[in-house]
Amino acid sequence: MGSAASAARADAAAVDAPWEVGALRFRPLDIDTWQEHVIYMHPDCAVCRAEGFSAQTRVRVQIGDHALIATLTLLGAPLLAAGEASLSLSAARILKARAGDVVRVTHAPALESVRALRAKIYGSQLDSAQLDSIIGDISAGRYADVLIAAFLAACAGERMTLGETIDLTRAMVKFGQRLQWDREVVADKHCVGGLPGNRTTPIVVAIAAAAGLLVPKTSSRAITSPAGTADVMEALTCVTLNATQMRRVVERVGAALVWGGALSLSPADDVLIRVERALDIDSEAQLIASILSKKVAAGSTHVLIDVPVGHTAKVREQSKLGHLHAAMTRVAEAFGLKIRIVPTDGSQPVGRGIGPALEALDVLAVLQCQPDAPAALRERSLLLAAELLEFCGAVPVGDGRLQAARLLESGAAWARFQAICEAQGGLRTPGQAVFRRDLTTSRGGIVTAIDNRQVSRIAKLAGAPRRQVVGLALHVRVGDAVDAGAPLCTLHAQASGELDYAFGYALAHVPFVIE
Amino acid sequence: MGSAASAARADAAAVDAPWEVGALRFRPLDIDTWQEHVIYMHPDCAVCRAEGFSAQTRVRVQIGDHALIATLTLLGAPLLAAGEASLSLSAARILKARAGDVVRVTHAPALESVRALRAKIYGSQLDSAQLDSIIGDISAGRYADVLIAAFLAACAGERMTLGETIDLTRAMVKFGQRLQWDREVVADKHCVGGLPGNRTTPIVVAIAAAAGLLVPKTSSRAITSPAGTADVMEALTCVTLNATQMRRVVERVGAALVWGGALSLSPADDVLIRVERALDIDSEAQLIASILSKKVAAGSTHVLIDVPVGHTAKVREQSKLGHLHAAMTRVAEAFGLKIRIVPTDGSQPVGRGIGPALEALDVLAVLQCQPDAPAALRERSLLLAAELLEFCGAVPVGDGRLQAARLLESGAAWARFQAICEAQGGLRTPGQAVFRRDLTTSRGGIVTAIDNRQVSRIAKLAGAPRRQVVGLALHVRVGDAVDAGAPLCTLHAQASGELDYAFGYALAHVPFVIE
Repeated sequence: MGSAASAARADAAAVDAPWEVGALRFRPLDIDTWQEHVIYMHPDCAVCRAEGFSAQTRVRVQIGDHALIATLTLLGAPLLAAGEASLSLSAARILKARAGDVVRVTHAPALESVRALRAKIYGSQLDSAQLDSIIGDISAGRYADVLIAAFLAACAGERMTLGETIDLTRAMVKFGQRLQWDREVVADKHCVGGLPGNRTTPIVVAIAAAAGLLVPKTSSRAITSPAGTADVMEALTCVTLNATQMRRVVERVGAALVWGGALSLSPADDVLIRVERALDIDSEAQLIASILSKKVAAGSTHVLIDVPVGHTAKVREQSKLGHLHAAMTRVAEAFGLKIRIVPTDGSQPVGRGIGPALEALDVLAVLQCQPDAPAALRERSLLLAAELLEFCGAVPVGDGRLQAARLLESGAAWARFQAICEAQGGLRTPGQAVFRRDLTTSRGGIVTAIDNRQVSRIAKLAGAPRRQVVGLALHVRVGDAVDAGAPLCTLHAQASGELDYAFGYALAHVPFVIE
Repeated sequence: MGSAASAARADAAAVDAPWEVGALRFRPLDIDTWQEHVIYMHPDCAVCRAEGFSAQTRVRVQIGDHALIATLTLLGAPLLAAGEASLSLSAARILKARAGDVVRVTHAPALESVRALRAKIYGSQLDSAQLDSIIGDISAGRYADVLIAAFLAACAGERMTLGETIDLTRAMVKFGQRLQWDREVVADKHCVGGLPGNRTTPIVVAIAAAAGLLVPKTSSRAITSPAGTADVMEALTCVTLNATQMRRVVERVGAALVWGGALSLSPADDVLIRVERALDIDSEAQLIASILSKKVAAGSTHVLIDVPVGHTAKVREQSKLGHLHAAMTRVAEAFGLKIRIVPTDGSQPVGRGIGPALEALDVLAVLQCQPDAPAALRERSLLLAAELLEFCGAVPVGDGRLQAARLLESGAAWARFQAICEAQGGLRTPGQAVFRRDLTTSRGGIVTAIDNRQVSRIAKLAGAPRRQVVGLALHVRVGDAVDAGAPLCTLHAQASGELDYAFGYALAHVPFVIE
């Protein structure tokens, strides 16, 4: 405790109110708790004793000018000495902690917004100030996961009015960064996800930009899938741009394809999504606020939303779309945002590749009009591009499909895509995996179904999206005839152990129905 | 990975389905996360890669025949090597883990009861089978904290019907141990808490037992307070008895004063209380189910409930008691349980001592009829004992107070208390703290108020209830006149640092108002 005690003594506040200041020395340890902030202190730590901290206490942690709220875990010797503190990687990153830094630990302040949260739990309707206070605290990382879970549960079902949903969306925008573009029409495109290989965004953006639309597109990385659009684009160029860099790209080439996470457009949403995933709760209000807050923050005016519908997709029946569409449209209107929902076929994967680099190759094949480019990906991209062009008024209604196809076939979309990548730091050639293995069918017949969820699972077992070049490449589509012994897909991996694991799983859970 | 790989090879399942079995070697580390189960694995662990585990994944952990659900944290070298796993102390204890044990880690199974939870979140009324499934999973430790928080939020406010509250109580009893007594009247006493030094239970139990009532009392340890009744009794005798041991005590002396936690009467409640505390949600249904499930499981027939009412107590106004009383009575009736609620003065601490041993000394002083025994504690104990005697039919209505006083003054209650302690393992003399310091007043006047919450905080800063002999002893009560320089209370501590911290805090937050 020697060094920490002298540090505390050097602090005027510590002399006057020693119980209010707990100063320890930071010791880096490699502890990954993902986005949950954890501080590690010794069980015999004087600060713990003095403050009455025990394991799981929520505390305020400060290093220099940076502070956050973390959960306490007690870590004994030899990992930590009394007088030392360590932090989870997420917390250390935010606090910019370096070995030996003075770490001050105090009781987490009582959160005023918890009163509003409690009111919502008891069934009250919240006003915009109350929602601001909750979302402000969530954005700043002040809420423990259990508080976030309680908030999500209290807002689920029919418990949020349209007004509350609008206020929630506004609050989520308010506590993030907001982009603004000096144009009347700013085109955007979103997919609710759940369908592997549905990588239309880079193609649609290239076509729309080639048609003269402004398309400053931000995308997410994979959360539960084998690849997000940001992961796929990263196999082709740099996607981690800040707002200034992104603006420069958009000004130069009319479009960008970047990772939204680097822009912090709706930091509360990133936190909410993490807990929502653990709860597996569908909340219409949260879904609308999540999607629209990021679009409003990105400065979009026209958003096309691709909703794959299918038995193993996220949305299983088209009939469920009606209410969501109506509510989302009303919320969008409150922000002067126009949305168009396009239900699409969600019965099977779209492109051939599943995994960042493999999907990037499909995107290149379509843009370069290669003869063997995946037809379903090309068709769906043209369909969505056509909708977007008409929706944004870039072409007359009814003319979208023809214009989109022309921009693709003329090479204009491909040229624009190259320009975007060059502006973002250069176009790269996707890499290839070291290990490959075909999954073959033991019997011939017709492929009658493909399970999207199992396809995603196999690609993830092979290492996607963590390893850029791995995943699987599909060789068949629903309706195809196959002979016994024919390859159904090829697994790509970077380690023989991962290949074996993924292959073993695929053998036991073959995602193809052949009849 | 050598040892883990060979362990996996020795397992038949591992050969057939390697992706379903993750076998690692247990390495003990001193990591305290309180009741949250955490497993620590290396970021490059083959099991993580194969299963697609990442930090915060919920996994099933098995050692030998013991299994539980835990949350994954990734811990790099040198703390852990790939092929090793460690566990939080709580998880290691339940799994009876020893260094080198084979740890099998798989995906946590999908919980069927989450469908019922989701239905409740969406506003449905649950039937008894659904509540059984949820409480069964919570009792078995299968719910992550975020799921528990969502359940609590979904049940808060007016969202539980009386029928649901009854079913919830029944489910909580069903998944715990249940005691049964061969008597028509089994007396019990409960306090909703929040008032420091309100240690009437040992005295009331001794009087009631001396009057011939059967009083098999189970008590809790402190959750947020400086002492629970189990902590105080532990300063006097052994309180960690199993059901058989407790039965033997009750058969011999007609009463017991044990720690309920060792009996696992309502394991779900222990889990719910922990998360409820973090959320700070008052849910009437949860409160009723929490109290009554433990009383039903303990085999009680008549329960007296002490509810201190005061500005810094848990219940601030007596008017709030009406609805709670009515609902609790209806639920109790469903289990053939009679309850009587007694509102008491919650304006200031009751005994002089705050902290396990200091409160035990007060209890002894009252039971031994010492001339300087704290009068308020004596009075309140007699009031509650009188109510309990009349309520249970041990004495005619109106005669309770007289009989209770006679049993106390005759030494019958003290004799019975000694017999209880002897039967539980022997009566001990409470220890004394090494360091003491008086908090004095700088001005004279009348004590007009004492802040219960600050008194508790100071006792906790001094180390209570972790250290049995520490806390504080009050020297004044509301209405007392004090001169400048007079001691208001004395802090007791076992370390000079803790004394200084607690004293510094007390100086800055003097809990006495003197006017």
